[in-house]
Amino acid sequence: MAARYSIGLDFGTESVRVLVVDIANGNIAGQASTNYEHGVIDQSLPGDRSKLPPDYALQHPQDWLEGMSLACKAAMKSARAKPEQVVGVGVDFTSCTMLPTLRDGTPLCLTDAFRKIPLAWPKLWKHHGAKSETDRINQVARQRNEPWLGRYGGLIGLEWFFPKVLETLNGAPRVYDAAEVWIEAGDWLVWQLTSGPFPHCEPKAIPRSTCQAGYKAIWNKKDGYPSRDYLAAVDPKLADLVERKMPGTLMPPGQRAGTLSDRAAKMLGLRPGIPVSAAIIDAHSGVPGAGVADDSTLVMVLGTSSCFMLNSRVEKLVGGICGVVEEGILPGYFGYETGQGSVGDSFAWVAKALSLPHDELNRRAAGLPPGSGGVLAIDWLNGCRTPLMDGRLSGAFVGLTLTTRPEQLYRAMFEATAFGVRWIVETLREGGVPCRNFVASGGLPGKSPLLMQIYADVLGAPIKLAESDQSVALGAAILGCIAAGKETTGYSSIAQAVGAMARQRTDVVYKPDAAAGKKYERVYRIYRSLTDGGGAVAGAMRQLREV
Amino acid sequence: MAARYSIGLDFGTESVRVLVVDIANGNIAGQASTNYEHGVIDQSLPGDRSKLPPDYALQHPQDWLEGMSLACKAAMKSARAKPEQVVGVGVDFTSCTMLPTLRDGTPLCLTDAFRKIPLAWPKLWKHHGAKSETDRINQVARQRNEPWLGRYGGLIGLEWFFPKVLETLNGAPRVYDAAEVWIEAGDWLVWQLTSGPFPHCEPKAIPRSTCQAGYKAIWNKKDGYPSRDYLAAVDPKLADLVERKMPGTLMPPGQRAGTLSDRAAKMLGLRPGIPVSAAIIDAHSGVPGAGVADDSTLVMVLGTSSCFMLNSRVEKLVGGICGVVEEGILPGYFGYETGQGSVGDSFAWVAKALSLPHDELNRRAAGLPPGSGGVLAIDWLNGCRTPLMDGRLSGAFVGLTLTTRPEQLYRAMFEATAFGVRWIVETLREGGVPCRNFVASGGLPGKSPLLMQIYADVLGAPIKLAESDQSVALGAAILGCIAAGKETTGYSSIAQAVGAMARQRTDVVYKPDAAAGKKYERVYRIYRSLTDGGGAVAGAMRQLREV
Repeated sequence: MAARYSIGLDFGTESVRVLVVDIANGNIAGQASTNYEHGVIDQSLPGDRSKLPPDYALQHPQDWLEGMSLACKAAMKSARAKPEQVVGVGVDFTSCTMLPTLRDGTPLCLTDAFRKIPLAWPKLWKHHGAKSETDRINQVARQRNEPWLGRYGGLIGLEWFFPKVLETLNGAPRVYDAAEVWIEAGDWLVWQLTSGPFPHCEPKAIPRSTCQAGYKAIWNKKDGYPSRDYLAAVDPKLADLVERKMPGTLMPPGQRAGTLSDRAAKMLGLRPGIPVSAAIIDAHSGVPGAGVADDSTLVMVLGTSSCFMLNSRVEKLVGGICGVVEEGILPGYFGYETGQGSVGDSFAWVAKALSLPHDELNRRAAGLPPGSGGVLAIDWLNGCRTPLMDGRLSGAFVGLTLTTRPEQLYRAMFEATAFGVRWIVETLREGGVPCRNFVASGGLPGKSPLLMQIYADVLGAPIKLAESDQSVALGAAILGCIAAGKETTGYSSIAQAVGAMARQRTDVVYKPDAAAGKKYERVYRIYRSLTDGGGAVAGAMRQLREV
Repeated sequence: MAARYSIGLDFGTESVRVLVVDIANGNIAGQASTNYEHGVIDQSLPGDRSKLPPDYALQHPQDWLEGMSLACKAAMKSARAKPEQVVGVGVDFTSCTMLPTLRDGTPLCLTDAFRKIPLAWPKLWKHHGAKSETDRINQVARQRNEPWLGRYGGLIGLEWFFPKVLETLNGAPRVYDAAEVWIEAGDWLVWQLTSGPFPHCEPKAIPRSTCQAGYKAIWNKKDGYPSRDYLAAVDPKLADLVERKMPGTLMPPGQRAGTLSDRAAKMLGLRPGIPVSAAIIDAHSGVPGAGVADDSTLVMVLGTSSCFMLNSRVEKLVGGICGVVEEGILPGYFGYETGQGSVGDSFAWVAKALSLPHDELNRRAAGLPPGSGGVLAIDWLNGCRTPLMDGRLSGAFVGLTLTTRPEQLYRAMFEATAFGVRWIVETLREGGVPCRNFVASGGLPGKSPLLMQIYADVLGAPIKLAESDQSVALGAAILGCIAAGKETTGYSSIAQAVGAMARQRTDVVYKPDAAAGKKYERVYRIYRSLTDGGGAVAGAMRQLREV
């Protein structure tokens, strides 16, 4: 029998990657990726010279479609796969990346009226324009003691859905008024696949993922979105936002959102009618993609930023987490998400600032003792997610002397991110959420054994690696397989499909070194003395943002 | 009448510079400098491969003599000066740079028995090996409530004379025992000039400067050195240190210490019998060298580190100053010294770490607004002198984001040193010492107009520049002229000589910008919130040193 494949469409920050995956064993039969033509739009809009405000990070919707089309055809070709071998399609996407559209799916930014309005364009997850709006949203929620606040560690993030909507309402009210649909980019993509692409989409059939909605748009299985009263209290114009501008049906990742439309099939070089899964956030896709379908295992997706996902039997309202969402990652569990705003990005910043290549810095840093010879970094170059949830915080180096060498700065930043992970783990445990095992995936583990050893030493626990170095895209393909259904795939449960298609490596496990762990224990205490939320350093960082 | 000259011998960290100065107007008729052959010895001793401990910074005494000989002859040649035109010689030297010698002036490190013992070598001012010894010296002084403690801001510095002696006693007791004379390098040099060079020096004729003794060896015009009881309480073996191992006569800079010996005259290419002034610390030499002979003017010698000197009519015991010494700089005044451990060195560290040249960084930094776009530095890469007097403190950067550019780090370090100056000025004023005018000298003002403008803006006061860009060496030459005496020079007072030979520039004055000052006011408050002595940041820095 010819192999049967599931397609994983993995939409990242700079590019889209497509995997063609054998559903029998998870082998990647073919793959390709395409860089977005416009990349991250943070200087000026396409066709426009006006300088964008700082903190802006936008994307071009056409990049997603064209990139996906090119990459999917190339991946199918590299797999020598025939369209009839493909049984399902899964989609993961960065989040909260979101956009305003018309009812037919057309992004507002692609209409003549709004082409030159920055706030009409898709806001990328790391768009940080909604600072005052985030404050407002949190302030009103605290005043009203909104029941959902506890599920998000007591704080709604700067990068989330409603802050970005409110930013648009404040900064470009015409855009807000003209938007007929506000939607996550991952959901928009699935919408395009199943009933589009635009301008042919039906507004009633918008499939929205419980993952994106739960983690980024304050949606909950029991209570839905924030109430009309709450939204009206934030701004009267938001009162009917959910009813009028957020149509669609909520469904968990892995559920069949629809089937490939004729036009979308043509765009991908696939057959119409293939089941498409509801979208999932890229990081969360890494959980099935790392072969994890049990509870109490922290899946660490380590990349430009890091996301930490954990399935648990218990629902606890833990201060400082990004979110706990029932069935947010896998059915039957409460899915916890925590995160670090900048990890690989911080290492890249250091390497760029020092004008030295990563390889060289890694090599030299590996020769240093734990503690980087007295240099301590704070890893908040893109703010602090868990546990402080504060985008105004910033990065730091302390302990510099005239003899401090570049590799000390680099290693100190490695160690800082490890301390950040440990703080997250302690936050979960202290909140009553068991956290026993660690599986790393994403781009960083393969790039730096030193980094992984530091994480193991700082956590005092072994770290396993996802077998696939593309666990996020693989996770999307697994969800595509699940959406295809038991009749087609033969898998009777999600756990069965995950177990067959993804695993952890057995040849490399990073084991903690006790002597190093003792040294890190001391440095971690110093790190915590500087990073605690109400401290002088955090206060100074916030004030610096205002100068 | 042929011009008459005074020679200024200026011993720096890396080189010795010699000026041939016209005593009528201060014009520099000729000059030359020689880099020390062994530079700063911080890796291994000459002729030895053993790695020195970190924090070690030593020098080679022969480098001083040979460098001085070469440079003096070259300077005389460049001035086309004849030996009979030279009326006096002045010496400034880094401090506390000190060494153990035999009674005949021979440095212990040049004897076969001690050649391979690091602690027998001259310890450069920035040698930081005496950490625990400094703690001990301060602890005993506080316990005994020593009367002199208040004159040094309540704290004896890591770089000073007695810590370096005690470090030797602890680390190399044989060296301590064998040392017949413990002496400042500047005093040793004057000793070599007037009765040497070794091994021909007479131990009774050692001229010791009240400047070095007052600022670095806890000497006071009224009470002399610390008491035998105090020294014995620190360590019984130190009890007779002053009586037995510190022979000599104390005299202020400008006083005639003696005249050039035959051998020394030959070494310099000068005539024997020329008057030689008692030595002065390099920074303090910058006061007369900047044309300042009045009170309440802060002379800022800005170089690798910065020293701030102020003559005042009042003696106040101000917390955190390096020292107040009666007639420590000029007769008739109480001389205040304060300082920053690392200024140009910090800028050099940043430029080296970023792999960018100073010119480029200066140019880019000049385009940034006050506050460096939200980046704040702490300038303690070589510890904090005034006002915290703590060598264990270290440098820091706060406010880093993924978009932070190299020039922001560079400018932030400029601003940090300016905030440090302001803190020093506030410390003096709050202590009751008037501080009204500002004159900058040293190597940095000419290199960076941006730096000077930042200082003016942060201080909210105009900054004048010493006319000579070599005010330290010029100051030494002025002292040589003064030592020559009224009969020879015609100057009836020190002020008259200073006024004739040194001035401030009239073409360039940095005036404070009010708008910039307002912005700096806010950032300075944040700087202070992080740098205050008992704060979390200082605590973390100290702990990091122990890891």
